[in-house]
Amino acid sequence: MNMKVQVGIIMGSNSDWPTMQAAARILEDFGVAFEARVVSAHRTPDLMFEYAETARERGLKAIIAGAGGAAHLPGMVAAKTTLPVLGVPVQSRALSGQDSLLSIVQMPKGVPVATFAIGEAGAANAALFAVSLLANEDAALAARLAEFRQRQTETVLAMTLPPVERS
Amino acid sequence: MNMKVQVGIIMGSNSDWPTMQAAARILEDFGVAFEARVVSAHRTPDLMFEYAETARERGLKAIIAGAGGAAHLPGMVAAKTTLPVLGVPVQSRALSGQDSLLSIVQMPKGVPVATFAIGEAGAANAALFAVSLLANEDAALAARLAEFRQRQTETVLAMTLPPVERS
Amino acid sequence: MNMKVQVGIIMGSNSDWPTMQAAARILEDFGVAFEARVVSAHRTPDLMFEYAETARERGLKAIIAGAGGAAHLPGMVAAKTTLPVLGVPVQSRALSGQDSLLSIVQMPKGVPVATFAIGEAGAANAALFAVSLLANEDAALAARLAEFRQRQTETVLAMTLPPVERS
Amino acid sequence: MNMKVQVGIIMGSNSDWPTMQAAARILEDFGVAFEARVVSAHRTPDLMFEYAETARERGLKAIIAGAGGAAHLPGMVAAKTTLPVLGVPVQSRALSGQDSLLSIVQMPKGVPVATFAIGEAGAANAALFAVSLLANEDAALAARLAEFRQRQTETVLAMTLPPVERS
Amino acid sequence: MNMKVQVGIIMGSNSDWPTMQAAARILEDFGVAFEARVVSAHRTPDLMFEYAETARERGLKAIIAGAGGAAHLPGMVAAKTTLPVLGVPVQSRALSGQDSLLSIVQMPKGVPVATFAIGEAGAANAALFAVSLLANEDAALAARLAEFRQRQTETVLAMTLPPVERS
Amino acid sequence: MNMKVQVGIIMGSNSDWPTMQAAARILEDFGVAFEARVVSAHRTPDLMFEYAETARERGLKAIIAGAGGAAHLPGMVAAKTTLPVLGVPVQSRALSGQDSLLSIVQMPKGVPVATFAIGEAGAANAALFAVSLLANEDAALAARLAEFRQRQTETVLAMTLPPVERS
Amino acid sequence: MNMKVQVGIIMGSNSDWPTMQAAARILEDFGVAFEARVVSAHRTPDLMFEYAETARERGLKAIIAGAGGAAHLPGMVAAKTTLPVLGVPVQSRALSGQDSLLSIVQMPKGVPVATFAIGEAGAANAALFAVSLLANEDAALAARLAEFRQRQTETVLAMTLPPVERS
Amino acid sequence: MNMKVQVGIIMGSNSDWPTMQAAARILEDFGVAFEARVVSAHRTPDLMFEYAETARERGLKAIIAGAGGAAHLPGMVAAKTTLPVLGVPVQSRALSGQDSLLSIVQMPKGVPVATFAIGEAGAANAALFAVSLLANEDAALAARLAEFRQRQTETVLAMTLPPVERS
Repeated sequence: MNMKVQVGIIMGSNSDWPTMQAAARILEDFGVAFEARVVSAHRTPDLMFEYAETARERGLKAIIAGAGGAAHLPGMVAAKTTLPVLGVPVQSRALSGQDSLLSIVQMPKGVPVATFAIGEAGAANAALFAVSLLANEDAALAARLAEFRQRQTETVLAMTLPPVERS
Repeated sequence: MNMKVQVGIIMGSNSDWPTMQAAARILEDFGVAFEARVVSAHRTPDLMFEYAETARERGLKAIIAGAGGAAHLPGMVAAKTTLPVLGVPVQSRALSGQDSLLSIVQMPKGVPVATFAIGEAGAANAALFAVSLLANEDAALAARLAEFRQRQTETVLAMTLPPVERS
Repeated sequence: MNMKVQVGIIMGSNSDWPTMQAAARILEDFGVAFEARVVSAHRTPDLMFEYAETARERGLKAIIAGAGGAAHLPGMVAAKTTLPVLGVPVQSRALSGQDSLLSIVQMPKGVPVATFAIGEAGAANAALFAVSLLANEDAALAARLAEFRQRQTETVLAMTLPPVERS
Repeated sequence: MNMKVQVGIIMGSNSDWPTMQAAARILEDFGVAFEARVVSAHRTPDLMFEYAETARERGLKAIIAGAGGAAHLPGMVAAKTTLPVLGVPVQSRALSGQDSLLSIVQMPKGVPVATFAIGEAGAANAALFAVSLLANEDAALAARLAEFRQRQTETVLAMTLPPVERS
Repeated sequence: MNMKVQVGIIMGSNSDWPTMQAAARILEDFGVAFEARVVSAHRTPDLMFEYAETARERGLKAIIAGAGGAAHLPGMVAAKTTLPVLGVPVQSRALSGQDSLLSIVQMPKGVPVATFAIGEAGAANAALFAVSLLANEDAALAARLAEFRQRQTETVLAMTLPPVERS
Repeated sequence: MNMKVQVGIIMGSNSDWPTMQAAARILEDFGVAFEARVVSAHRTPDLMFEYAETARERGLKAIIAGAGGAAHLPGMVAAKTTLPVLGVPVQSRALSGQDSLLSIVQMPKGVPVATFAIGEAGAANAALFAVSLLANEDAALAARLAEFRQRQTETVLAMTLPPVERS
Repeated sequence: MNMKVQVGIIMGSNSDWPTMQAAARILEDFGVAFEARVVSAHRTPDLMFEYAETARERGLKAIIAGAGGAAHLPGMVAAKTTLPVLGVPVQSRALSGQDSLLSIVQMPKGVPVATFAIGEAGAANAALFAVSLLANEDAALAARLAEFRQRQTETVLAMTLPPVERS
Repeated sequence: MNMKVQVGIIMGSNSDWPTMQAAARILEDFGVAFEARVVSAHRTPDLMFEYAETARERGLKAIIAGAGGAAHLPGMVAAKTTLPVLGVPVQSRALSGQDSLLSIVQMPKGVPVATFAIGEAGAANAALFAVSLLANEDAALAARLAEFRQRQTETVLAMTLPPVERS
């Protein structure tokens, strides 16, 4: 297992952790070394820039950034690094993450953010995507990803449906 | 007339100028000294930070920031200054500015951006709002603002309606 | 501490107070004298007009107005004063504040309302924005605002993330 | 034909006339005396209040108010009169009238505005609704309304479809 | 008090009653005689047509129709009568009444439905609007409506705000 | 080829024909006998009911109904027949067919309308669906449908892309 | 009762069963033989293709497919069979099924999916629609469908409304 | 320059090429070998599966898939490969790409699609993201990407604004 940190998971607040730990869980399962920390675009902008600027030299291969509402973290990190940045729209209170999604995905031409689904599914998928990206150069990881998919398929194939409920 | 620059108008691209010049026009009309320049959150992030960080010491009293799509400029400038930041959602192509609006207005608690309507009306109103803010400490400007409103009222009062068209 | 009332907080009903007290709390924390009262656009229109018309002469520097649904209070107050008016969209029942937001932010050219996020975050930010506006002419307040931001940054920097939960 | 003005048609700007004249046309067709004028909630608030307050004593039976964007005219007129107020959302530029619609229809409990479709169809229907309201006490008008509907039905019954076009 | 039924309240299902009884409550308070019954556009279309067709001859002056989802009841009743039809969008489960609202308000030119807010506020306002319509020809009712508004204003004027809560 | 009319195509106005003829074209291509006529829910409600009530006895196997805005035609026809009803949301002016779509698809439990995409694609697909339904009992038609799909596949397989344009 | 399976009910996960069993319940009530199983577009794509490809030869007359979020199951099944495919948008967490609805209904020209309402009502209606489709060739089933509608009408006719609640 | 094809660009129709060639242009500019072809989820499902299944063995490192409306291509390709799949929502006619966006981004947990902005900007950004992904293992490419960003920054820095237009 590669112990050098390859993926950074950042989020605007520790209140985003219930969502974003789904990404951490996947990376743990795949044995991909990662770091997870709170980096806020609006409350720690200098940390954010420093984090983004040094990410490549620190050996990161991808950054997963989760944020809600006027979610600027993924896009601003992408503005300061040429590493692949994966954005996760955290479900917001009033608008259920529609604001988060649009704030992340509608990036202008020139600075891409790869965006995933709103909430926990998106966080997990961002991590799976990071795995797929690393797997391009890591045959063992590619094999683990293929096994993950295979098990996932088998889980669905094994699903049964209970009888129709009658009230 | 105060010739010291009091308001900064910034926008992500010169393609936002047709919208944002409505703000410039108002400030010119009111004799408020301003500067207008292109500062892009995603393409010139360092300039953006420097602009925001030095704005107060340069004597600015307000910053009007226009952006479209995943519009991060107003919020990121607000993250780097305690000056009043006024955000103008520029009308975007696919989503007509709904993305711009949500990206600007849905700021998290702690870092405010005063948001105005999508497009040219919003740009003009941001400038009028800047005038109202400056007018708190400038009686002459307050008088000009009152006159502007009065003329506006008179313009509406003088409006007439043509006869109903029959095809 | 300046004891002359500088900011008015108004809202359409006392049911908006759970949201709008977030603005009051910020102003209290900053030592900005304010008044808070119920003024309804639709149920007390004359009071609203009187409130707006006399606000400047009473020494107010800004009015924070919160309303939900077809939220007309901020815009109508703005129509009757040249003071800066800050609008807070209160989260509505059926449409989660999307109606409140659009009713407040989409003001026509000529009468600006500075709009903030839906709900409590927006109320707090409106107050912080009022502070920033007052801080333009009050160095002590500007210093307190800078400290507030600094503490906010430190709070985020101190955040830690618990281990990934496994079910 | 009753020459006493029974219906007031008001709108925020003469730029709303292309939409609102559809209401005027219907009232002309039905021989209902009306007046049409520009009354702006935001730019002529005092005129608006005066218009609303005196409407009943001037003998109006209904007010048709059209507005776009943050459309406050119908609701504020309704706040100042107990006459039936009919609101027409004018199609706005960026948001196609979705803002106008929500600003008009989502009135709080206690002050009703009868809302119609976005744009010209809504303006025409507001006028037809005013006719139906007056027809409750005017048998001749009720008969004309029934005839209008009958002709409308006949127009549809007479519609034919051309052959399928082949490119 | 006029005991002849003047207003019909209909709704697609008895599950709409919690919403629609807000209309009934208002009419009771005003002493306006009404009937309330379940009439479903999709499940009792013939009853709906019969109800609409006979409404005028039975002496009704207005019909309040509430429905949710693909809400066809108000529009189809309007298609079969020239009486004023007031539509109330009932809050739907998945889409919170956005479907109900659009299905009711976006009527084509020629057949108007006066639409009110989603949910209970809309039901109450439809009833208040019916009162205003009847009040055109009933001075006593007009007086009661003015009193209602006056009391409503006084209720707001008497509202006080508790101290800011600190956690 | 079966010359007995099997499918009815109806629409609220002849202005819907540019959209709905896409359905007619498909049925012609497949040799399915159909009739096309204007039947308006709101302007010819009695014709609509009669059309729906007699459709089964006249031998129809499916009804394709297109309508825009507050689109009640498909749902009301479905309320009056147990035949399969296919609804086509016609693109509306202000809301681009979002109102049409929700008015058609969100039918309450008990009265189904099979809904297709907004506009011409939806009209064509409703016709293809009608073909698939008839093909269940008509092997020749099933074969033609399979051929249509095959040709469609081949058309896509034959598509080539021109060189990248450089401005 | 025909015991040969005529309708397939498939869904992306057993978590969709609470919604989709509403379809199964209807088919049971009508004595239409069906099968229900989990088939996931994304997790068992090969099974999905095989299911769709063999459906016609196995004697199915219709496939009801339910899915949520980026709901690809109905459209992809439709791409691999010429049988009628009925799509049910399952209510999703963040976006309440708006994503599911658009992913299912907005199919391109050439491959139709008949779409029903979001959630349980849509599932039940898809089943009723399948019954109507089979009833074209099965007089006994058509009679049962007519009886179902008749009972449904009677249920509504028997509904009564309790007195208005007063708090 | 690596002449082995590393990126596949696929799209549902050649009508998507005006959008998707923005991706091709970027890859050409960066000297990344790619292939571009039409692969339709709904019209060539078998080709799509074959394309996805063989992509890894053919040496592709990423697949960029563009589609509009009920856009199933990116998600279904992702279901059949563990390669990184990048989705581009093509702007659709009625709903401006909102349907395309939700159909692509809202993928369920387990099968990720990295989603980019609606339209041409999204296509270009998907390509830039593919470059960043490849640049993780290709220092020369990383350098070219850094240069691209640098030039982009310089372009913005060089932008000037013309004088305010006066009509």
